[in-house]
Parts: sequence; C-alpha cells; structure tokens
Amino acid sequence: MNLINVSPVRHRSIYNFCAGPAVLPDPVLDQIQSQLKNGLNGMSPFSVSHRGPEFMEIVERSEFNLRTLLNIPSDYHVLFVAGGASMQFSMVPMNLLGAHETADYVVTGQWSEKAFEEGLRFAPMRLASHAGPEFNRIPAVATWQINPAAAFLHYTPNETIDGIQFSEIPKVPLPLVADCSSEFLSKPMDVSRFALIYAGAQKNIGPAGLSIVIVHRDFVGLASRGIPSLCDYASYAQTQSIYNTPPTFSWYIVDLVLQWFLLEGGLTEIERRNRKKAQLLYAAIERSGGFYSNRVPSQLRSMMNVIFHLPNSALEDAFVAGAEQRGLMNLAGHRCKGGIRASLYNAMPEAGVHALIDWMHYFQEQNA
Amino acid sequence: MNLINVSPVRHRSIYNFCAGPAVLPDPVLDQIQSQLKNGLNGMSPFSVSHRGPEFMEIVERSEFNLRTLLNIPSDYHVLFVAGGASMQFSMVPMNLLGAHETADYVVTGQWSEKAFEEGLRFAPMRLASHAGPEFNRIPAVATWQINPAAAFLHYTPNETIDGIQFSEIPKVPLPLVADCSSEFLSKPMDVSRFALIYAGAQKNIGPAGLSIVIVHRDFVGLASRGIPSLCDYASYAQTQSIYNTPPTFSWYIVDLVLQWFLLEGGLTEIERRNRKKAQLLYAAIERSGGFYSNRVPSQLRSMMNVIFHLPNSALEDAFVAGAEQRGLMNLAGHRCKGGIRASLYNAMPEAGVHALIDWMHYFQEQNA
Repeated sequence: MNLINVSPVRHRSIYNFCAGPAVLPDPVLDQIQSQLKNGLNGMSPFSVSHRGPEFMEIVERSEFNLRTLLNIPSDYHVLFVAGGASMQFSMVPMNLLGAHETADYVVTGQWSEKAFEEGLRFAPMRLASHAGPEFNRIPAVATWQINPAAAFLHYTPNETIDGIQFSEIPKVPLPLVADCSSEFLSKPMDVSRFALIYAGAQKNIGPAGLSIVIVHRDFVGLASRGIPSLCDYASYAQTQSIYNTPPTFSWYIVDLVLQWFLLEGGLTEIERRNRKKAQLLYAAIERSGGFYSNRVPSQLRSMMNVIFHLPNSALEDAFVAGAEQRGLMNLAGHRCKGGIRASLYNAMPEAGVHALIDWMHYFQEQNA
Repeated sequence: MNLINVSPVRHRSIYNFCAGPAVLPDPVLDQIQSQLKNGLNGMSPFSVSHRGPEFMEIVERSEFNLRTLLNIPSDYHVLFVAGGASMQFSMVPMNLLGAHETADYVVTGQWSEKAFEEGLRFAPMRLASHAGPEFNRIPAVATWQINPAAAFLHYTPNETIDGIQFSEIPKVPLPLVADCSSEFLSKPMDVSRFALIYAGAQKNIGPAGLSIVIVHRDFVGLASRGIPSLCDYASYAQTQSIYNTPPTFSWYIVDLVLQWFLLEGGLTEIERRNRKKAQLLYAAIERSGGFYSNRVPSQLRSMMNVIFHLPNSALEDAFVAGAEQRGLMNLAGHRCKGGIRASLYNAMPEAGVHALIDWMHYFQEQNA
C-alpha cells in the first residue's frame, strides 16, 4: 500500500540543511525504524501509555541524561512542554513577571524581536538594547539600558535567521532568560547563570512539537490563576511534565537523541565537531574572494546557521536550485532575509559540509 | 547500534487496548517505516521544512481529506494545534467568551468535569447539568438548566474513563462546543450542528501532541489581545495553522491516517467496524452471567471505550496480568476508576476483540 507517492530511492547522499525541523542523527533514525512497529515491549512507541512502564522509563532516562549532559544543578526543574519555542514567548512572561510590572528584552535578531513583541501582550516590556535593523552586530553589554525593576532580561543567544551568536553569556543584574532553541545542546553551557532557558526540540534534539524548559525552582509557582493550566510551569514541575498526555513519540525521539550525544562523547565532543563544520564553511566563504560573503563580524558568526550571499539574487536562486539537484537541500535563506542559509546542527555530518563546499567551488568556477 | 534495550521480537500478535496514545493502523506504520529515512523527496518526514513543498502538500491534502470525510461546511475553519485536548479546555473560553460573562457546561464524566474546572479559571462558568458521582447516566436534555446569557454550551460526547457516550447531538439554544477527542472520526457527524469541535489526535487519528479544532468562522477573532498568540484561533486560521513551526511529523502521520480512512471506505465503513467490535465485546460481557459486568445503560455504552468489572479487584488484577502474558496490553481501567478498560479505536482490528473475548472465556472458566 502506498498512501502517498514515494520518491524513487536516490543512490547518492542527501544532505538537508533545513533550519528546522532539522535532520536527526542516522543511528537514531535506524533505531526508530527498528522499533516503530513493536519495539517497546511488543508495542509501537506511538502507542505506549504515557503512564505505563515503557514510557516512564523514557521520562526518567531523558531527564537524567539531560541533567548529565548539561550538568544541570538540582535546584532546576527540567520540563517537557508540548509546542514550540514561540509558546514560551508567552509562557515566560505569564510565569516570571510575578509581582513585577515589566521585563527587559535584548533584540539582536528576528527571533528575539518576536519574543519581545509577544511579551508586549502581557506587560509594557522594555527594550534594554536593539541591534537592528541589519542584525549584524551585538551591542556591548555595558551599553544595555537595564531596568532594575524588571522581572527578568530575555535574550536569544543564537539567531537562526540572521546567523549571529553570542560568544558568551552576558553578565546582567537581572534574572536571565534565554531562548536557546537553535544552540541548545550544541555545546556545554553553564545553566546556573540562568533563571530559565528554553528550546524547541526541532533544531538539535528532536522533532518539532516539543520544547524543553530548564527553570530554577524559585521561578516556578509565580503564575496567576487566570492563565491556562498548561501555561503554568508548576503544572509540569509537579507532574514530571505529564499533566496531560504529552507528545509521547516526540519525547521518545528526544530520549534517543540524548543517548546518542552521550555515546558520541557528550557536549564537548559535539561542540568540537560543530566548531569544525562551521570553521570549514566560513573559511570557504572567506577564500572565495568576495563571490560568497558574510556580513557578520567573525567573532559573532553563528556556529549553527551560516548565512552568506552571492553577488545577486539571480545567482542565489541558481545556487539553491543547483544545490538541490546535487542533494543539498533547503539552502535558501529565510524568506524575509534572502541569501543562502546552511544550518549545521548537531546531526549534520562533516561530509555534508564538504559536499556543500565542493558545490560552492564548482558554482563559483562556472559563474564568477 | 542499540540505543535502548529492544525487546525480543514476539512471534504472536500483540493487541494494544491503550486508551490513548492509541494504536495506529498497520498500513500507516508500514508507510512511516518505509519513508522514515528519506521518503519525502530524499528527506526524512522529520526534517522537511514546514514551509517547503513537501510539507505544504501534507497540509493541503490533510485539510482536504478531513473536509471530505466529515463533510465540513466551507464556513468552518480546520485548525491544527500543537498539544492535547486539555489545552483546548483553556482555548475554548479564551476565544469564545467574547463579550459574554459565562458559559454552560454539561458534566457527564471525568473529562467534561476537567473541562469545566479549567473553564472556571477564566470565568464563572455554570453547570447546566452534572451526571455524577457515578457517571453512568446522561440526564435528559430537557432537564438541563440552560442559561440564555451563556456564550456556549460545552459537553463531551464520549467519556473515555467512564465508558459512556451520547447517542445523539443534544439540541440546545446555545452555540454548541464538543470535546470529541475519543470519538473523532470514529463515525460520521454533522459538523454544522456545532460552533466548535476539538479532538486530541492520539485516540483515532494520530500520535499524541496534536489537536484538531473545527470552528465556525463566526467564533474566530473574538479573543482578547491579552492571551498568547498561540492560544488565539485567529493565529491559526490566518496562517493555515503554520503561525510557527507546527508538529510536522505528527501532522504527517495524521495525513496518512486520513488517507487510510478514505481507502477503507470512509466514516460509514469505519463506524460499521467500530459498532461491530463494540457489540461483540458487550455481548460477551452480557453472556458471562454476571462474572463480567458493565454499569452503563445499554443505549449509552461507549463504542470506543468498553469498561467492565470482575467480581473483585484481585480477579481484575489477575485478569490484566494474564492478558498481558497473552499480548493483550493496557487493559487496566483508569487509575481513578479501576476495573477493566478496552479501548476499541479505529485502528483496533476485530481480531483483537476476538482475542480479548477468548481470554475472557478462558479466565472465567478458570476463576468463576
């Protein structure tokens, strides 16, 4: 039975540079495939009860492994929340404002701007700093206008659309909140510096439709009663995130991905690989004599999302179309930014970067 | 590579009666397995862009097929929302109260009671009728205390925990809202009778973590600005439910399941099968001379969730444990209700019901 048209099998490698939903590691796909029909005690991972022993093992192991990978202090909750990071744009203010009337936002790209705009639905949020309109710089922390009465300061360490990334955690005299979606588990990080971090799973750690929230216990329980139960972090903290039926299959996959990270050597090794992939690609851009260009200062260039431009948009369209013919998929930049975007999340192998660089060389030779 | 322990392959059939996340049809599992690594234009269904052509085909087809299956009038929106039906307990009042100060709830089981309790977070909701404490009856509509000033009346056509199901849509002088989670697409229904229906996918149509909302256009756009963008139905109606990254893989599966329904003959045929499965099981209960008993009046017995009891809880425990040894999984009743619960959603084959009845006969012979 073919429910939908199956593409013919391709005998060459496909590398998918999608900015998210991103690729999963091949060994994880193999494992899913082998367990899909009856691999959990004779049942499909789709269909185990969220309160049964097969799923509780996944719940326990995934939290344990996440705590191990990130060295999460014991006074932080680890929450699994249905939906994407955009839902956290709302849940963060609904939960963390408490008795405060406002919070500070630092806008260094399009995602932090969305978070700020969503925050305005709940309180008169303030901009501590705004790096626009080009979003190719990060203002020095010393220039940020911090409001001591703010409940928290929100920022976005890596901006997927703009390809810009903080090189260190900013030191500010406010509880720090970070949308880590696109750099989460791509490298070690010091969780203790934050009041809360959140991440959609669909970049580095799983499928779309599930987010991870890591929150210090002092920031749970501050929400007012007039919000949905499922928007209150306390509902998750009190129930091991099983307040209602969670996205069980997505959680199962996150569990497999976390195990893969540990088997591969943990986040130090993952970071080494990610850094190498990004260095290879940025070096290729630099060596192109300006045919390929990146507008972000070198120390702020994203390790996850490499943005570059060609001399004109017609060449960019041809570059993307030719890449797809070679099995290099989803290289078009975000629809509101243009250019080329290659996302190099954890599961992108170095071989994919070499294939992309080969194509860049060939395309430049043909078109320069 | 074995990331987690894989159970030894069982050479007999496993039937999983889980109340949700429920089983998926075998042909759908086959299709997922065959496409998992590179079946969508060389890419995994996990990793296609939510704005790319591969996924947009899924979006268009799934809405079209859902409209076909349910004969949904064109003045209704079909929305795909991340999360489960419990999130709709909040979103319904946040969106539909509008200028009204209250709404009516009919409580006929534990899920409608949860919906009512969640509604109280947003407004002083009223009980039009409450069938407790045993939840084995449905008060006649004529006895419901309808408040003409209510924004809507909410009810739950099928109660999964209590095994009780409305046999027809109640006629009330208010916009009607129904949590259809556990009967959605198990039979035809007249959508035009409702202001809004919603359903978590994980019973009849897909994996946990995605809900379908079908809402008349007059009830979209009433939400106040002080709610999360992702709780506003208008955000979905205006974007084909792609306001942010949706749960793409779950949506892909729902698309496959909808195709399967159509191939199998549509909802009339699906209902015929479901009715037969339920009749077989209830008849076995009736024929047991009281060893197995069901406390719901026959015309209100759920076609989806068959609840029954044995003479005592020790026998019930032995029944569940022995069933599991035979590959009949997840037959324990809900933790707050006890007894036995066999969920017979669309994807449960009739053979599973026969296997269960065989076990019931054998167990009764050994223990009566």
